[in-house]
Amino acid sequence: MSTTAQIGISGLAVMGRNLARNFARNGYAVALHNRTPARTRELVDEFGHEGTFVPAESAEDFVAALERPRRLVIMVKAGDPTDAVIREFAPLLDTGDVIIDGGNAHFADTRRREQELREQGIHFVGTGISGGEEGALRGPSIMPGGSAESYASLGPMLEKIAAKADDGAPCVTHVGTDGAGHFVKMVHNGIEYADMQLIGEAYQLLRDVAGYPPKEIAGIFRAWNTGRLDSYLIEITAEVLSHVDAATGRPFVDVVADQAEQKGTGRWTVQLALELGVPVSGIAEAVFARSLSGHTALREASRGLAGPTPRALGDAEAARFADQVEQALYASKIVSYTQGFHEIAAGSAQYDWRLDLGAIAAIWRGGCIIRAAFLDRIRAAHDNRPDLPSLLADHEFAAEIAEAQDDWRAVLVAATEQGVPAPGFAAALAYYDALRAERLPAALTQGQRDFFGAHTYRRTDREGTFHTLWADDRSEVEV
Amino acid sequence: MSTTAQIGISGLAVMGRNLARNFARNGYAVALHNRTPARTRELVDEFGHEGTFVPAESAEDFVAALERPRRLVIMVKAGDPTDAVIREFAPLLDTGDVIIDGGNAHFADTRRREQELREQGIHFVGTGISGGEEGALRGPSIMPGGSAESYASLGPMLEKIAAKADDGAPCVTHVGTDGAGHFVKMVHNGIEYADMQLIGEAYQLLRDVAGYPPKEIAGIFRAWNTGRLDSYLIEITAEVLSHVDAATGRPFVDVVADQAEQKGTGRWTVQLALELGVPVSGIAEAVFARSLSGHTALREASRGLAGPTPRALGDAEAARFADQVEQALYASKIVSYTQGFHEIAAGSAQYDWRLDLGAIAAIWRGGCIIRAAFLDRIRAAHDNRPDLPSLLADHEFAAEIAEAQDDWRAVLVAATEQGVPAPGFAAALAYYDALRAERLPAALTQGQRDFFGAHTYRRTDREGTFHTLWADDRSEVEV
Repeated sequence: MSTTAQIGISGLAVMGRNLARNFARNGYAVALHNRTPARTRELVDEFGHEGTFVPAESAEDFVAALERPRRLVIMVKAGDPTDAVIREFAPLLDTGDVIIDGGNAHFADTRRREQELREQGIHFVGTGISGGEEGALRGPSIMPGGSAESYASLGPMLEKIAAKADDGAPCVTHVGTDGAGHFVKMVHNGIEYADMQLIGEAYQLLRDVAGYPPKEIAGIFRAWNTGRLDSYLIEITAEVLSHVDAATGRPFVDVVADQAEQKGTGRWTVQLALELGVPVSGIAEAVFARSLSGHTALREASRGLAGPTPRALGDAEAARFADQVEQALYASKIVSYTQGFHEIAAGSAQYDWRLDLGAIAAIWRGGCIIRAAFLDRIRAAHDNRPDLPSLLADHEFAAEIAEAQDDWRAVLVAATEQGVPAPGFAAALAYYDALRAERLPAALTQGQRDFFGAHTYRRTDREGTFHTLWADDRSEVEV
Repeated sequence: MSTTAQIGISGLAVMGRNLARNFARNGYAVALHNRTPARTRELVDEFGHEGTFVPAESAEDFVAALERPRRLVIMVKAGDPTDAVIREFAPLLDTGDVIIDGGNAHFADTRRREQELREQGIHFVGTGISGGEEGALRGPSIMPGGSAESYASLGPMLEKIAAKADDGAPCVTHVGTDGAGHFVKMVHNGIEYADMQLIGEAYQLLRDVAGYPPKEIAGIFRAWNTGRLDSYLIEITAEVLSHVDAATGRPFVDVVADQAEQKGTGRWTVQLALELGVPVSGIAEAVFARSLSGHTALREASRGLAGPTPRALGDAEAARFADQVEQALYASKIVSYTQGFHEIAAGSAQYDWRLDLGAIAAIWRGGCIIRAAFLDRIRAAHDNRPDLPSLLADHEFAAEIAEAQDDWRAVLVAATEQGVPAPGFAAALAYYDALRAERLPAALTQGQRDFFGAHTYRRTDREGTFHTLWADDRSEVEV
């Protein structure tokens, strides 16, 4: 217990363990703590050579091992376990100490915890960490919230262990106060859901419309990964699609049960967007698609429903279609990010976080699941114009969609005619066409609401709130 | 104060006032109470001739005027005002008395209140009431929750004031215990959002693709209203579309600002569906479409975005297209109701309500905003087969969709090619095609999740949970 640790990790399941190793490999002395001490010993036995670890069996010893101000990262399950660990540590800490929650907490819980601990003089830094096990070990994208003061002490360490973007910048920034970090991580995950759904639809179209086998589709994704779609998810899609199941000799993707699971952050993203009044139809369709896939009884009962007869494409036609799918995927991806960044902007306004959207795009360029060349473009769009009202208002993105739109529409026409579900592509295009529409049927909606509920309406030609006496002489009154 | 009232209404804004008159017109003596007594006096002055009213200025007098067990309806704003009124009345009541909340409470609040009051021996009946002002007066659709015991005393009165379906059945039933009534009303409103959105899209397509002016579209809706789409919302759509603005001489729908508002029940429906894991993409798109329409800055910034050049239709082509839109609207409507009833079934299972889906369809046949001939079909489908897994599994609906699907697809192709947003139609078709798909790209999603997060997957050919060692030799392990 003679060594003083610069950081402590409590909770040594795979994410906590890899994060501890990451700190140690970067030269920090790391105090270790776990509810069952066996796991602590295992880590030291197996990876002790990687750096300086200070194992502690009790919470008291763990806290005593930390230099001041203390920085301790808790890596436990979100919800009650997190509160339990905080209740255990808080009484042992002093003013100015920092608790970092690196779990997947809901940002509203983080806001509550931050406030409670602030009253005790303790900094609470809810921190999004993306990149899975590998990211935690080799460099994740890190999204810390909490006070600016805590970041001054913590930031340099996080910058060391974070992933580095291609330009060398560490994939971490002080996102904003209180729950801002977990909020941004939540939307990151929502965007990840949408990205994965769009990739899934592209795959399905290449398979069912163009008629390609998984192996060839893997090649198509691999080719896309050298272009503007260059990203981790496209890369691993090629890996998954090219994988052959050893037991059966069949494409791996054909032996995996087609019922997708989810852990909740996608759902949270949509629930909050509904609260904030932000249309995130692409993310919603992605969450719904996962739910739908798991309703096996419903799917069984629907198997015989009528559909169109698929039409086989010739080789040249299929190759042309694959190019169109790339355009559709790219355009839909722009829309997904437009929706996600709209939610971030709305959350920023709602909670007074003053989030820097360009900086957020920048720290997603490396380490995290949605890392992509594309994010550098989003960063540039926001840096070029800090008041950018929407990604679609960026000239470059708008120009790319203009270029893509014929193909985007052609792909959706094919999906519609051939009966291949493409809810993500369709929602993205409908959002795009609705936003650019001169007039929307919302006027009719308002008229109906006024008719049945006297909910009133506004007019295009003058200020005020109006109601038509529908059941009477249908004259208009100002209310 | 000599007359004893069989029912009391506290909260005499327009809904409460009309409900009081409805009870009085049906022969019940109605005690009246309002925070500001002036409103009570107004009601008696203006409508006293309609029946027996017992005005009361204080809560004590109001409660004293009621026969036992007391039945008092509170018609105040949802949220804190409802709790405040309950706190005021509860101490004045006796065991077996019944408080009916006829406001738009969230069903989770109703569950909480029901439990609290049950502990005091008071029945709390959260009750959905649909039909707006007119419905409250002339007969609404009524969705009471709460105990079966309370319904025994209250039901006969509600059956008197409720709307009557074409077969004479009153549009009220004991929906289920505690919050079941408000839950079902919430989903009713979600379905209403979807219905209105689909009608809006149909209108927009008839206008922008077929080139019809509002007046002609009104005629088309009027014609549809004589067929299987026969419903209150289609009827009033024709009224709104045929209305001419007196000030400008222009179609009314063209002078109404195209920013739709919402009060929250649609959003709640989607938020809960996400919680329950039920895909309600049609309702979600309807909620998002309203939000999107209100983002005027975003819409302004998107005006110049590239779109296709619309193609004018000839007269015969336009008429044919209108028929196709009717098919698309009807098919999409079946999907909306499928999703809504799926949510009701899921809520029923989650909260152990044992809801009777056929009975719920039956009480929506009259009085409420979504009343429609169509609901009798849904009732029949559920009555014919109580374990119906989905409306789409009903042979008649399936046959109708089979008949409609070519036109449904043709309408979406036109919307896609011509750049007219149809998010509701598109979401409905994608849901349909996804449900009937033999395989979904969810298998790829599971493969990706296993690759980046070791989230494991199941296989189609044997039981168990598996993980592929992606970073290693890519062998498979059972976990």
